[in-house]
Amino acid sequence: MNVEIINTGSELMLGFVLNTHQQWLCRQLADLGHPVSRQVAVPDTGAAIQTAVKEALARTELIIVTGGLGPTSDDLTRDLIAKLFEKKLHYDATVLQNIETFFAKRGRPMPPNTAVQALVPEGALVLANAHGTAPGLVLEFVPPTSNANAPGLLVMLPGPPRELRPMFANQVVPLLRKKFPLTAGFVCHTFKTTGLGESLIQDEIAQPLKQLTDAGLEIGYCARVGEVDVRLVASGSRAEQIVTDAGTIVRSRIGRHIFSEGGETLETVVVRLLTERRQTLALAESCTGGHIANRITNVPGASAVLWAGLVTYSNESKQNLLGVRAETLAAHGAVSEPTAREMAEGARRISGADYALSVTGIAGPAGGTEAKPVGTVFIALASVDGAKVLQSVNGYDRETFKFVTSQQALEMLRRTILLSAATTKD
Amino acid sequence: MNVEIINTGSELMLGFVLNTHQQWLCRQLADLGHPVSRQVAVPDTGAAIQTAVKEALARTELIIVTGGLGPTSDDLTRDLIAKLFEKKLHYDATVLQNIETFFAKRGRPMPPNTAVQALVPEGALVLANAHGTAPGLVLEFVPPTSNANAPGLLVMLPGPPRELRPMFANQVVPLLRKKFPLTAGFVCHTFKTTGLGESLIQDEIAQPLKQLTDAGLEIGYCARVGEVDVRLVASGSRAEQIVTDAGTIVRSRIGRHIFSEGGETLETVVVRLLTERRQTLALAESCTGGHIANRITNVPGASAVLWAGLVTYSNESKQNLLGVRAETLAAHGAVSEPTAREMAEGARRISGADYALSVTGIAGPAGGTEAKPVGTVFIALASVDGAKVLQSVNGYDRETFKFVTSQQALEMLRRTILLSAATTKD
Repeated sequence: MNVEIINTGSELMLGFVLNTHQQWLCRQLADLGHPVSRQVAVPDTGAAIQTAVKEALARTELIIVTGGLGPTSDDLTRDLIAKLFEKKLHYDATVLQNIETFFAKRGRPMPPNTAVQALVPEGALVLANAHGTAPGLVLEFVPPTSNANAPGLLVMLPGPPRELRPMFANQVVPLLRKKFPLTAGFVCHTFKTTGLGESLIQDEIAQPLKQLTDAGLEIGYCARVGEVDVRLVASGSRAEQIVTDAGTIVRSRIGRHIFSEGGETLETVVVRLLTERRQTLALAESCTGGHIANRITNVPGASAVLWAGLVTYSNESKQNLLGVRAETLAAHGAVSEPTAREMAEGARRISGADYALSVTGIAGPAGGTEAKPVGTVFIALASVDGAKVLQSVNGYDRETFKFVTSQQALEMLRRTILLSAATTKD
Repeated sequence: MNVEIINTGSELMLGFVLNTHQQWLCRQLADLGHPVSRQVAVPDTGAAIQTAVKEALARTELIIVTGGLGPTSDDLTRDLIAKLFEKKLHYDATVLQNIETFFAKRGRPMPPNTAVQALVPEGALVLANAHGTAPGLVLEFVPPTSNANAPGLLVMLPGPPRELRPMFANQVVPLLRKKFPLTAGFVCHTFKTTGLGESLIQDEIAQPLKQLTDAGLEIGYCARVGEVDVRLVASGSRAEQIVTDAGTIVRSRIGRHIFSEGGETLETVVVRLLTERRQTLALAESCTGGHIANRITNVPGASAVLWAGLVTYSNESKQNLLGVRAETLAAHGAVSEPTAREMAEGARRISGADYALSVTGIAGPAGGTEAKPVGTVFIALASVDGAKVLQSVNGYDRETFKFVTSQQALEMLRRTILLSAATTKD
């Protein structure tokens, strides 16, 4: 089956907006067993949208069009596609009612031009918009493949992500499951890992999985700096068994590098582990400059576990706030194993938290020396068992450096929490 | 002129990677006066890449292809396009030398398969890669428009952004300026603003600019939550004058909301202003959880101005680290005007910094009350002139809340620094 996404919007073509729909929709569709074969973005002009849709109709069974369903003069998608399909538009009473309710709830008058969003091409299925005024629309068409019993689907979705995503998840996914049932079973399972590069993971698992890949297992690697997703996919009647067996092998080979199997981020896992154990955390960040605190506090409920984060960028603040000794700074420098250790121990002492994580390093672009090049970092973790320090050289641009370093620090914390729990149980 | 971007990579189609090339390249090309007319993403399969390139050759003068130039088996772009152009590949000695140097510098043996990246289609222009091993390649073709004196260009760029971006800026931009000179003047000027919504800005400037838009001025608004870019564009012999006149009007109408005209981020402006004045900053963040510190420390040289950032998530840390009084917390709560004020004053007192910025609020999704709904936030700024407090309700999801709140806080700081400088001069 061919699947095509068409993103409309001049703001995309002028580079004013990042197209996050592509990744999100592609991931959803791949996990449903319908990977996207082509994605196209075009400006809000009539000719460009119609050309893109016409081309897609000639080669595709499923077309998802995003954007251009709003009330303003550059929202042309609904009109243009209705014309292309030779369908008249009529006002849909339920949609009109929804738009009126939307404004009434907010105590705002309904601008007259918003009523245009209630226009629906004849024969279209209407997808209610729980978070905005423009509904989604679905039209059937005859796809290029000759099987007339299975019509193609063109799905129009509103542009704003907070409207598009729930509409897709709650209404389009069930529709696709019904209209495009997978002829055979389809199973997909993703491991999120950190601490091993893509090629090292491949070296570890490719050979042991050989028998299963011969039997139809597909392995996908999604490598970002500091994080690799391993995706196991199989189709057919044995899909479930193949992915289960493969998962067992993957866990046995790289288990300690897997931090989640359900899609959780590393910071979410850490907050969850601490919450479950009613333990607390203090942070003392130099070179990561609050990046770790920011990630931790992106997780709802982080306030239950984070006592405080200290961004001690200056030597003075390392001394005053954390009690790092002047002699330590003088003898070893701010970027050193002893300083990292004293930062973590100081943060734990002043906070009384169960764990204190510290980071000191050289983010660059300036500040490196021969002995300590740009990217040098010391990460320390203090707990009831004392403090341990990890040294690394993360030679990346400033923002990547911060992310990679925060991954190492959070992973060090995750493993320590798990290990300490294991010890307690013994 | 038609411009098309083709992004290749199965990782894009599976939703494993966010396509940041589209926005970046679209913005660069729009600012050069060559807005992109279509962007396409296809998987790493031979047929899909060749079809996309063939279609583009038939309707386009400039084609940018990203990805697929690396050394592994799924890097097919170079081969496929050479075949399509009926060009033989030969080893380029300079490129081979660069690859050898790349590995030698890192003290790593050169993997034999990396030599394939030195293969260059005959007649291609080679773009040196300063940050990796795969060079960029440029081929000329006869475009669909009949002017044979101006050949079309197909530019192949490596996939990693840290390789693609400098290659485009340093080598492709000069080439495009030479090969596709703008027939008439083209001037583009962008204002970055915060604190006014898109429609309010439009209300302020559209009417006063009417005469200039009638004369050919184009106004583009790029609205993100917490930030609106206003882009003024004109072509033709009067372009410079039109944009200059329009800029004067925009500054007179919304000047105090403009934080940069050269593309600087708000955090970069704040760090620059403090550095110029040799002033220092301390941060005390509750609900933004380190987001402001993280933004400030993304700016190289931030260590000269940031004394420390304190992420005081718990009441206890607000008291112990910042000296917020227990009575204040008991009487008014952690999210209150007096607490924000005491946090800022405390941070300034312990740090001796010139400015101390504090934030306390309810990021959500839980924790709101009728009197203080989710999104309620108090931002305080302490300086030699005392402390002032701003209250706002930023009703967004957690991460958007943090960004919008950090915009308000940084903008409050920016204006205060400028005001204080103005006062000093008097």
